[in-house]
Amino acid sequence: MRLSQSLTKPLRERPAEADSANAAYLIQGGFIDQLGAGIYNLLPFGWRVYRKVAQIIREEMDALGAQELNLAALHPTGPWKASGRWDDPEVRDVMYQFKDQRGKDYGLGFTHEEIAAQLAKPHIQSYRDLPQAFYQIQVKFRNEPRAKSGVLRGREFMMKDLYSFHADEADRDAYYDRVLKAYPKIFKRLGLDALTVEASGGVFTKYSHEFQVLAGSGEDTVHYTEDGSFAQNDEIFDEKNVPKDAKNLKKSSAIEVGNIFKLGKRFPEAAGVAFLDKQGNRQVPEMCSYGIGPTRCIGTVVETSHDDNGIIWPAAIAPFAVHIVALGDDADVTKAADKLYADLEQAGVEVLYDDRDESAGVKFNDADLVGIPQRVTVSKKTLEKQSAELKRRDGKKVELVELGTITKKLTS
Amino acid sequence: MRLSQSLTKPLRERPAEADSANAAYLIQGGFIDQLGAGIYNLLPFGWRVYRKVAQIIREEMDALGAQELNLAALHPTGPWKASGRWDDPEVRDVMYQFKDQRGKDYGLGFTHEEIAAQLAKPHIQSYRDLPQAFYQIQVKFRNEPRAKSGVLRGREFMMKDLYSFHADEADRDAYYDRVLKAYPKIFKRLGLDALTVEASGGVFTKYSHEFQVLAGSGEDTVHYTEDGSFAQNDEIFDEKNVPKDAKNLKKSSAIEVGNIFKLGKRFPEAAGVAFLDKQGNRQVPEMCSYGIGPTRCIGTVVETSHDDNGIIWPAAIAPFAVHIVALGDDADVTKAADKLYADLEQAGVEVLYDDRDESAGVKFNDADLVGIPQRVTVSKKTLEKQSAELKRRDGKKVELVELGTITKKLTS
Repeated sequence: MRLSQSLTKPLRERPAEADSANAAYLIQGGFIDQLGAGIYNLLPFGWRVYRKVAQIIREEMDALGAQELNLAALHPTGPWKASGRWDDPEVRDVMYQFKDQRGKDYGLGFTHEEIAAQLAKPHIQSYRDLPQAFYQIQVKFRNEPRAKSGVLRGREFMMKDLYSFHADEADRDAYYDRVLKAYPKIFKRLGLDALTVEASGGVFTKYSHEFQVLAGSGEDTVHYTEDGSFAQNDEIFDEKNVPKDAKNLKKSSAIEVGNIFKLGKRFPEAAGVAFLDKQGNRQVPEMCSYGIGPTRCIGTVVETSHDDNGIIWPAAIAPFAVHIVALGDDADVTKAADKLYADLEQAGVEVLYDDRDESAGVKFNDADLVGIPQRVTVSKKTLEKQSAELKRRDGKKVELVELGTITKKLTS
Repeated sequence: MRLSQSLTKPLRERPAEADSANAAYLIQGGFIDQLGAGIYNLLPFGWRVYRKVAQIIREEMDALGAQELNLAALHPTGPWKASGRWDDPEVRDVMYQFKDQRGKDYGLGFTHEEIAAQLAKPHIQSYRDLPQAFYQIQVKFRNEPRAKSGVLRGREFMMKDLYSFHADEADRDAYYDRVLKAYPKIFKRLGLDALTVEASGGVFTKYSHEFQVLAGSGEDTVHYTEDGSFAQNDEIFDEKNVPKDAKNLKKSSAIEVGNIFKLGKRFPEAAGVAFLDKQGNRQVPEMCSYGIGPTRCIGTVVETSHDDNGIIWPAAIAPFAVHIVALGDDADVTKAADKLYADLEQAGVEVLYDDRDESAGVKFNDADLVGIPQRVTVSKKTLEKQSAELKRRDGKKVELVELGTITKKLTS
């Protein structure tokens, strides 16, 4: 992409409306813009990051044998009344519920347990139809009393929600454990170091699990030991649970990027899901749900991976792999930068090419702000040595590399 | 995918609630299910079809130089009040507008002209920032008084909307013409033969253009000549416009699968978008919008490509390329079918493998219903000749093909 033709160019000023580091950098860099309190558009650079995050999550869900689908966001009341949650005060507080102009009630999905259970009903009739696991990656709506912290807590956001159904508790626990082990790997791929933390299990199970990234800007508080043998959310923390031999119990604020729950039979029961077991007895399946917030993950990456100059994207989710900066309007520089751009694109590398008529200072500042992992600078001075300057966003070293070898170097 | 492990299996009965051929086949085949009137979940098979449709549209939008993004669905009133559409009776009739539990007004996006113009504002400051074109493929909401015809007219549906901004009418017309020519090609790739039809241009231009697929179940009526020289929507049809030498003027019902509009300066003006031209004069850009309904396209394919037994998917958007049917529980049959399945998957072919314990009749009926382009049957009889039976969904011929050559035949 030539930056001259991009819809967005990095903005000169930190946005006044930004309430957090992630909002400030993401808005200034042209990744998102704010439509309303807690409501953001994902602009082309932000959408590129989002699609990479979604694709990583998709691959890991597929590896768990889960099938992708897309559930409606506009919900009639039926399934929510059946589960008793339509009138639950905690739900009413965060679910957008409204009457349309003809008096019909709707809710907007902030989660999909009821819908997942209802759609499974005709397809789960026998023990042979189990287990089942399916997921979606899509938009959710939540009426946050205080939307804040940029894309960390929005009124509209993206969510991956996986639901699984099982013939018995043993099968449920085995699958839950697979997901429990897969999640830290997913976050690692996204560039996040997430702690697996015990949290309240509600009425169905002793603990649920949250995945928490330590960050000063986090809303949650976690207690954990450095050896990894213990981590609990402050809400359920009990010092008596800490293993005797664990050292260095610590306390930190953290951002929750995922959570997983054993839900028992509540939602299948409410939706009338039942199957015949091997003995021909009618049984209600066990259900679990497993969430990850892709937009919140993006915000968390920015919160935990930036410096004073801008974002430092992990390679796996960076909007582009390489940022070419062409300095000055010398014809040879333009020619060499154009060729480098064409060669890299030809080699399948995603490139942002700053071909604008701007000063070196502006271009370098913008490159740091946008945070693409590799910066390649072409100038009259570098061309004297038939070279370009290579610099990683997360390093300080500037390396002179011969033009003829750059594409190979960046693709190997 | 092994059908035994699939979330959905084809249903035995045509669904009673289906109001159209597309709803009947898509629900029975397990592609969608109905959550409420005009509200459908896209189940795994349907989601596969949708993702292929979206990817084809994405490729064609990218080829038009448009940048992909994702605009919020939950809209504050500001941009809609600025354009005057919040209180427009025609808009109020179809837009979900509601107050949240704290008294704040929101609307759900059924289109995004206002949002597109507003976000473009900080990025379009100079003639050098133009032209711009960006698009999204995402969920929309529309309060249809009478939701009907399955996924042809839903209250929640998927939409591709492209918006373009131009410095002057000449540039606008040139880009509009590129899109006008690109659209029929897009529909062709989706397996649809779409007529380019003149329709009402509203207040901004004489004509807009619609893309209409002739179908008995369509809501629209078009007049057209077979030589392609004339096509108009009944709403603006004037016999005097038909070229003198045109032959065979015909009239047909049709399904609108896309439309494109020149919108003039209305939305940029309302959002305060302005740029300095080469002479330093303040100008308001010209805007166009271009829609395609991916879910409606899927419904239209089913309406126009099915027989009494089920759907006949075009290869480009079929949920799978090959449907393996294993007949009987003979160990050799299972072994040969398993191997064929593994070989095809290994070769990158998407396969639905009917490995269930069902009769030949059920399996063949289900294969016809689901409508995958190629069916491969393995049975004790075919194995006597070291072969399998190959049949195209859109043909009658059954061909015996040696097992060793099937993968090559299906991938060449």
